[in-house]
Amino acid sequence: MAISKKVKTAMEDSSWVRRMFEEGEELKRLHGVSNVFDFSLGNPEMEPPPSLKKELRALADHPIAGMHRYMANSGYSETRAIIARFLADETGLPFDERHIVMTVGAAGGLNVAFKALLDEGEEVIVPSPYFAEFRFYIDNAGGRMRLVDTHDDFSLDLEGIEKAIHRNTKVVLINSPNNPTGVVYDPSSLEKLATILRKKGQELGKTIYLITDEAYRRIIYDQVKLPIAFQYYPHTLRVTSHSKDLALPGERIGYIAVHPHCGEAEALISALIFSNRTLGFVNAPALMQRLVAPLQRNSVDVRVYEEKRDLFYHALTSFGYQVVKPQGAFYIFPKAPIEDDVTFVKDLQSKRILTVPGRGFGKPGYFRIAYCVEKQMIERSLTGFEEVAFKYGLKKTG
Amino acid sequence: MAISKKVKTAMEDSSWVRRMFEEGEELKRLHGVSNVFDFSLGNPEMEPPPSLKKELRALADHPIAGMHRYMANSGYSETRAIIARFLADETGLPFDERHIVMTVGAAGGLNVAFKALLDEGEEVIVPSPYFAEFRFYIDNAGGRMRLVDTHDDFSLDLEGIEKAIHRNTKVVLINSPNNPTGVVYDPSSLEKLATILRKKGQELGKTIYLITDEAYRRIIYDQVKLPIAFQYYPHTLRVTSHSKDLALPGERIGYIAVHPHCGEAEALISALIFSNRTLGFVNAPALMQRLVAPLQRNSVDVRVYEEKRDLFYHALTSFGYQVVKPQGAFYIFPKAPIEDDVTFVKDLQSKRILTVPGRGFGKPGYFRIAYCVEKQMIERSLTGFEEVAFKYGLKKTG
Repeated sequence: MAISKKVKTAMEDSSWVRRMFEEGEELKRLHGVSNVFDFSLGNPEMEPPPSLKKELRALADHPIAGMHRYMANSGYSETRAIIARFLADETGLPFDERHIVMTVGAAGGLNVAFKALLDEGEEVIVPSPYFAEFRFYIDNAGGRMRLVDTHDDFSLDLEGIEKAIHRNTKVVLINSPNNPTGVVYDPSSLEKLATILRKKGQELGKTIYLITDEAYRRIIYDQVKLPIAFQYYPHTLRVTSHSKDLALPGERIGYIAVHPHCGEAEALISALIFSNRTLGFVNAPALMQRLVAPLQRNSVDVRVYEEKRDLFYHALTSFGYQVVKPQGAFYIFPKAPIEDDVTFVKDLQSKRILTVPGRGFGKPGYFRIAYCVEKQMIERSLTGFEEVAFKYGLKKTG
Repeated sequence: MAISKKVKTAMEDSSWVRRMFEEGEELKRLHGVSNVFDFSLGNPEMEPPPSLKKELRALADHPIAGMHRYMANSGYSETRAIIARFLADETGLPFDERHIVMTVGAAGGLNVAFKALLDEGEEVIVPSPYFAEFRFYIDNAGGRMRLVDTHDDFSLDLEGIEKAIHRNTKVVLINSPNNPTGVVYDPSSLEKLATILRKKGQELGKTIYLITDEAYRRIIYDQVKLPIAFQYYPHTLRVTSHSKDLALPGERIGYIAVHPHCGEAEALISALIFSNRTLGFVNAPALMQRLVAPLQRNSVDVRVYEEKRDLFYHALTSFGYQVVKPQGAFYIFPKAPIEDDVTFVKDLQSKRILTVPGRGFGKPGYFRIAYCVEKQMIERSLTGFEEVAFKYGLKKTG
């Protein structure tokens, strides 16, 4: 056979995603792109903030000698120093540039972190529903993913996590604001999680690392403040990107920040840099490292997303859908009115609405809507959601 | 332990590289950067061609809506179509955009190719001396590297390669122009290699893939024409980047091209795209995909490198060093006058000259000079090379 058996199996396992994608494309061919309501992808339609465009113009007009050359595999010292200062301000912890490794987005950062941390067969605990790509990232490094269900409101099941930790556990990975649920874990659950990790670490005589995927950290509503995991637990790595806050997903720019008091921080940071190099990333894209450095406090206008969240949340609940109100990211994860989420998602397709079945996130019986699209598309789609709700008797008066 | 045992071992094994790097840094601290002749890294001091800078200004001044968003994991259709047209012209083969996957440089491309092709324990044959990172790339995908020595002039030992092929062989990887030797494999050796791969493939009842790492394909001298592997063997993947020809190494932009008649091409291309996504690259940097598309026939001024090659080659041979004259890339790989290349490299350090011992490329007894530096640095370093030659009796008259 031409291709790796493992890759072949993984591709077959996710072939229903492909089939649904192809059905969506077919719908677009039939009805025209503007008549299909595509909520299947987290590809923000927003443009980067004007400050970024200005920085790009400045660099293009006045190029710096050597600005496209290799730099240290961890990234530009200047960029890392700026990020470290930002983190020191945010956390009160003594971050400096050594604690930052610039990466090819958060996806690159997670692969680097798992490669640096995991031995063959070591486990990573992931609360479910979860971003399905995590499974591949962990497997790439020879690790094993152990899912722990969240509660009905998608908050962390701390007892479940504690029970799942055993001698092979190396990492707990959390993603907040969460894809696919939009949930933000509250300070008290982070505090309790930290207590559990300390206790179990002591019992097992090892350090359990906490990795926080904070790709959506700036996309947050209702004046909620994202609790800072660094303040609860020292053995923490933050993996994040500027894909969402600066609307640069195609540019692949992010970073890993290692808690200054993290266990064996120096060896860990060396291993991260080594992995960034040898996994073939080599370094985060040079030009983007320069562009994002001065924009650590900037962000796209989050109210635009909040308005769309409100629009969807109010409409869907008024149609009778059961929905946990998202506090961040740009996803909403309602319960499907029937158990079979794939059938339900096909019902929505018949209304030219594209969503992703919950089983794509380890949670059958739900579906994900990505609302990082134009407001008008949301408004025009609502009738379709209402009609399907009516079909399943969610809404009594049509 | 905090970090992966495998990563720890790999880092320890290469710790002498680190030690030498640190000694070099110490020299720079002692004598000042401009008084240390650093030939240790392939980080070109050249700037991208003016055409690229112009493209960047045009895009910065007139941004295209959505130009920083995600695109297909294989890259922009437009960019792939332009590259495919270029390849069709070059080879006479029916390349189209489906045969191109844009990658995060050649290092990213090689990791993607190995992930897509290799099952646990399958072997990749690599002619030695070789670029040492290949070992990690192959290991990342669970493969095993099998080195086959080249001849004294660093040409391919085709008999040796034929003998090394067995039922677990999946890939032969060649790198031409070669790092560290600068050698370009000639048409006849590619033709013979193709014959061997066909014959052994038939004997073993499987397809053996040829991967050509052509990162230095435009850096070529003496009006030598780089033979096109695609024209000799259908089961060929070209992995390359614009790090060297457009002097963009920090930007991480390259591609994989799959021969249109490659065995199971469709499955293979799907696996490449899947691996590009799940290894965490997601896609090649968006802005760079646009910038390099119209510049497929452009390149930095290669005569600048050729002049430096000539300078070094003539000086070193006149000092009595045994040197195979490089026909491409920007490396020269002379024989050390003593067996112990690390000791010899330290002798050069005593003259404030930084090079890399041959054992870093699987070839003790040699050393690598990367001459992608300012001409003046080369000129100022020559006395040091001469003095060390004299010490070892290479040069009789001092």
